[in-house]
Amino acid sequence: MNKLINLETFFNPRTIAIIGASDKKGSIGNVIMDNTLRRGFKGTVYPVTPSSKSVMGKKAYPSILDIKDDIDLAVIAIHAKAVNSVIKDCVHKNVKSCIIITGGFSEIGEYEREKKLKDIINNTKTRIVGPNCIGVFDSYSNLDTIFLPEDRMRRPLPGKIGLISQSGAFVAAMLDWAASENIGMSKVVSFGNKIDVNYSDLVQYLAQDDSTSVITIYMEGLEYGRMFMEAASKATLHKPIIILKSGRSVAGAVAAASHTGSLAGSDAVYSAAFKQSGIIRSYSSDELFDIAKIFTCHKEPRGDKIAIITNGGGAGVMATDALEDEGLKLADINDKAKHVMEEHFPSYCSLKNPIDLTGDANVERYEIALREVLNEGCVDAVLLILLFQAPTLEDDGVERIINIYKNTKKPIIIVAPGGTYTKGKIKELEKAGIPCYQTPERGVRALAALCHYYKCLREKQSV
Amino acid sequence: MNKLINLETFFNPRTIAIIGASDKKGSIGNVIMDNTLRRGFKGTVYPVTPSSKSVMGKKAYPSILDIKDDIDLAVIAIHAKAVNSVIKDCVHKNVKSCIIITGGFSEIGEYEREKKLKDIINNTKTRIVGPNCIGVFDSYSNLDTIFLPEDRMRRPLPGKIGLISQSGAFVAAMLDWAASENIGMSKVVSFGNKIDVNYSDLVQYLAQDDSTSVITIYMEGLEYGRMFMEAASKATLHKPIIILKSGRSVAGAVAAASHTGSLAGSDAVYSAAFKQSGIIRSYSSDELFDIAKIFTCHKEPRGDKIAIITNGGGAGVMATDALEDEGLKLADINDKAKHVMEEHFPSYCSLKNPIDLTGDANVERYEIALREVLNEGCVDAVLLILLFQAPTLEDDGVERIINIYKNTKKPIIIVAPGGTYTKGKIKELEKAGIPCYQTPERGVRALAALCHYYKCLREKQSV
Repeated sequence: MNKLINLETFFNPRTIAIIGASDKKGSIGNVIMDNTLRRGFKGTVYPVTPSSKSVMGKKAYPSILDIKDDIDLAVIAIHAKAVNSVIKDCVHKNVKSCIIITGGFSEIGEYEREKKLKDIINNTKTRIVGPNCIGVFDSYSNLDTIFLPEDRMRRPLPGKIGLISQSGAFVAAMLDWAASENIGMSKVVSFGNKIDVNYSDLVQYLAQDDSTSVITIYMEGLEYGRMFMEAASKATLHKPIIILKSGRSVAGAVAAASHTGSLAGSDAVYSAAFKQSGIIRSYSSDELFDIAKIFTCHKEPRGDKIAIITNGGGAGVMATDALEDEGLKLADINDKAKHVMEEHFPSYCSLKNPIDLTGDANVERYEIALREVLNEGCVDAVLLILLFQAPTLEDDGVERIINIYKNTKKPIIIVAPGGTYTKGKIKELEKAGIPCYQTPERGVRALAALCHYYKCLREKQSV
Repeated sequence: MNKLINLETFFNPRTIAIIGASDKKGSIGNVIMDNTLRRGFKGTVYPVTPSSKSVMGKKAYPSILDIKDDIDLAVIAIHAKAVNSVIKDCVHKNVKSCIIITGGFSEIGEYEREKKLKDIINNTKTRIVGPNCIGVFDSYSNLDTIFLPEDRMRRPLPGKIGLISQSGAFVAAMLDWAASENIGMSKVVSFGNKIDVNYSDLVQYLAQDDSTSVITIYMEGLEYGRMFMEAASKATLHKPIIILKSGRSVAGAVAAASHTGSLAGSDAVYSAAFKQSGIIRSYSSDELFDIAKIFTCHKEPRGDKIAIITNGGGAGVMATDALEDEGLKLADINDKAKHVMEEHFPSYCSLKNPIDLTGDANVERYEIALREVLNEGCVDAVLLILLFQAPTLEDDGVERIINIYKNTKKPIIIVAPGGTYTKGKIKELEKAGIPCYQTPERGVRALAALCHYYKCLREKQSV
C-alpha cells in the first residue's frame, strides 16, 4: 500500500523541486521548468540551483535542503557526477519520489555509480524513476518532465491510455504521434535504467488509476518476470494490458541487450506468459495504439459475431477476409431485418452480411441498416465502412451516426480510408468516442483483440 | 500492337466527347466536364447532349455523329437504357475508345443489356472500359473522368505509381489518401464490369508506359488467368507488379462473388501463380502503397544485407526484429568503418549494426555513419531511423541527408515516427525521392519486397 502512495507522488505531487532548473534556453533544466509552468501544473514548483537566485521569476534554492516545505517529487537534471550526493540530500529530507533524468550510469558502463545510487536509497522511503530517462507525463495533473521542446514533440490531449516504456525515445515518438492523431493519453512513464520503480510497480499503480482505462507497454526485456506476471494477471481483471515486446528475433535480442542491457529471453516464453496473464501482445506501434483505442470505448461485445455495413463492396470483401484471418465470424442477418432493409433500399443493395449499401448510399440507408443489425441478438459488434468520397453521404451524416452509437451498448468501429475530407470526419467521430481506422485490416485486428479480451474475462469471472 | 494504340487513347486522347455533359451542378456529366476543363486537359472537349445548345460555354452537340472531328475517346454518363444506342453511334463513327461510367448492367442483373453491349463492339476497333466504373485518371495528360467532386476526393500529384482496380470505390479512397500523403500517381483505371478492356490489356499497356515505374492492382477475381499471368511475367521484367488480392478467405470469396461477380478461386492457386509470374502480393492497402513507394526510388539493392542507423535504441531493436521476420540480414560492419566512427562519436554510441547514435546525436553523426556504411561492400541498403523529437537534430539536417542520398546508388529508406514537425520533415525527404515510413515494420516490409524483386530479376536475367 505504501508503495502505491509513493507512486502517486510521481504523477500528482503537491510540491516539486526541479534540481538543475535554469534560465538557459534549451537546457534540460530550462525545458522542464518551462513545461511545468506553462502547462499549468497546479502544485508548487521550487527551482533548485546554486548558480542563480531565481529561475523564471521564481526564487531559487541552492540545495533542496534549503526548502522549508515538504517535497513530494524531486526532478533531477544535473551532471551525473553530482547525482548521488543530491539523492542523499533527498533521502535526508524524506522526499517521497525522485525522477533522475540524468544519464551516465550503467548504460555507459558506470556500474559503480549506479550501484552506489541503489545503496543510497536502499531501505529508505524514497523511490526512484530512472536514471537515464525522460520521466513522467500526466495529462491531467499537467506534470511534464519530458525535456523535449513542444515544437519537436507535441503533447497529446487528456485521454484514457496509459503508457509505460523503458525507452524514452519510444515515448517521445509515440506522444508526438498520438497528439497529431488526436489520441488521448492519461499517464506516461519512461523509466530508463529502472534501478527502483519497475514494470510491476507501474502496472499495479495504473491498474487502480481511474484516469487510465487501458495500459500500453513497450518492453525490451524483463527482470522479476514472476512478479510482473502476477501483477499483470490481477490488473487484466480490471483493464486490458497491451505489450509491444521487441527483441523477439535472435538479432533483435542482441540489439536489445546492447540498447538497455535487457536479456530478452526466449520469445516463446514471453508469448506463453503473456497469454497466461491475459496480456494482449502487439507487433508494431500502429497495432499497439489501434488496439488501445478500441478499449477506450468501454463497450463489451458479448461474442465474436460481426456485422459489416459498407458503401464500397471492395472494402467489405477486405474486411471479411480480415475477420476470418483474426478468427471472428460474420453474423447471420435474419430474414426480418432483411425484409425491413429490402423495403427501404434499392434492389441492387446486397443485404447479406457484409451489407453493401453501394456507392450511392445516403446516411439514411446507414441509419436503417445500423438500427436493424444492432437489434439483432446474434450481432455482437458492428464494423461500419464509410467511404466519404461519395458525395451522397450528407455532411451532417456523422452526427446522425454518433447519435446511434451513443444509444447502443454494442461496440461499433468505423473504417474510413481517405484524405482531407475523410480525416475531418474521422476527427468528429473519434471526438465522440468511436474508434476509427484507415484500413479494414487494422480495424478488424483491434476488434478481434476486444472480443478476445472480454471472452477471457468472462471465462475468468465464471471460474 | 493495335491494342496498345487503342489503349493510348484512353489516357492521352486528342479529342473527347462527353456524352451526358451537363450544366447541372453535381450531376455526373457536370463533374466530368468540370474536372476535364479545370484540370487543364490539353485535348479538345466536345460536350454531347440533346437538351442544351452549350455546356460550360462550349458548343454542345445533340449526338456524337454531329461532331465533324474524329473522336479518340467518348466518355458516357447517361441513363443505362440509352447506352447501347450511343455505343452503336460510337462504333459507326469509329471512336477508338469508350469509357462507360453508367451502371445498370450485369451488376444489377441486367445480363441481357450487357450481352447486347458486348455484341455491338464485337469485331470492331472500338474498345470499352466499363460499364459501371469511375474510369480513368491520368495525372500527366490531366484526363479525369472520376465523377467525384474534388472537395470529397482530392487528386494526387503526378508520380510514378500506376493503379488498376475493378472497384471504383477502392480507387476513389486510395487516390484521396495518396493525395493527402503526397504519394504521386501516373495512370489510374477503374474498369467496373470489364466487358472488354481487362487486367491483361492494362498490365501490358502500363508495362510499356514511361510515366509508370510500378504497377499496383486491386483484384477480387480474375478471368483469363493464363493470359494475365503471361502478360504479368513479361511486365515484371521491366517493372514490379504488386497485387492486393481480396476474397482470400471463404467468406471473403462469397462476398467478392456478390460484389463484382468474381469467382475468387482457390487462394493458394493465386499465391502460386503470382509467385511464378514475379508478382508481389500485398495484404492491405497500406502495404500495397508502402511497397509501391520504395520502387519509385529506382535504386537496386545487390543483396539482402541491411545497415540500420538510429538515434533511438528501441526503434533499432524493432527494425532488427522486422528484418529477421522478412528474411533480410543485418550487414556486418567492418572494423575500418567502426574505427572511423569510434574516432568521431562519444563512447556510449553503439557501433555494431544496428548502429545507435543515441538520443543526443546531431546530423553530423548521421553523415559520418551513412558515408561509412555506404562505402562498405557488404551493405546492400540502409534503413535510417530519424527520431526528429530530438532537438539535437538540426533543422537543416534533412538537406544534408538528401545530399548523401542523391550521391549513392544504394537504396536508403527512412523510418520517422511522429507528429507535426516530423511529418513536415518527411514531406521534404519524400519530395527528394526518399521513401519514408512511420514504423520500422512497414519500412522493412517494403525493403524486403525491393530486395526480393531484384533478386528474382537477376535470376531471370542470368537464365
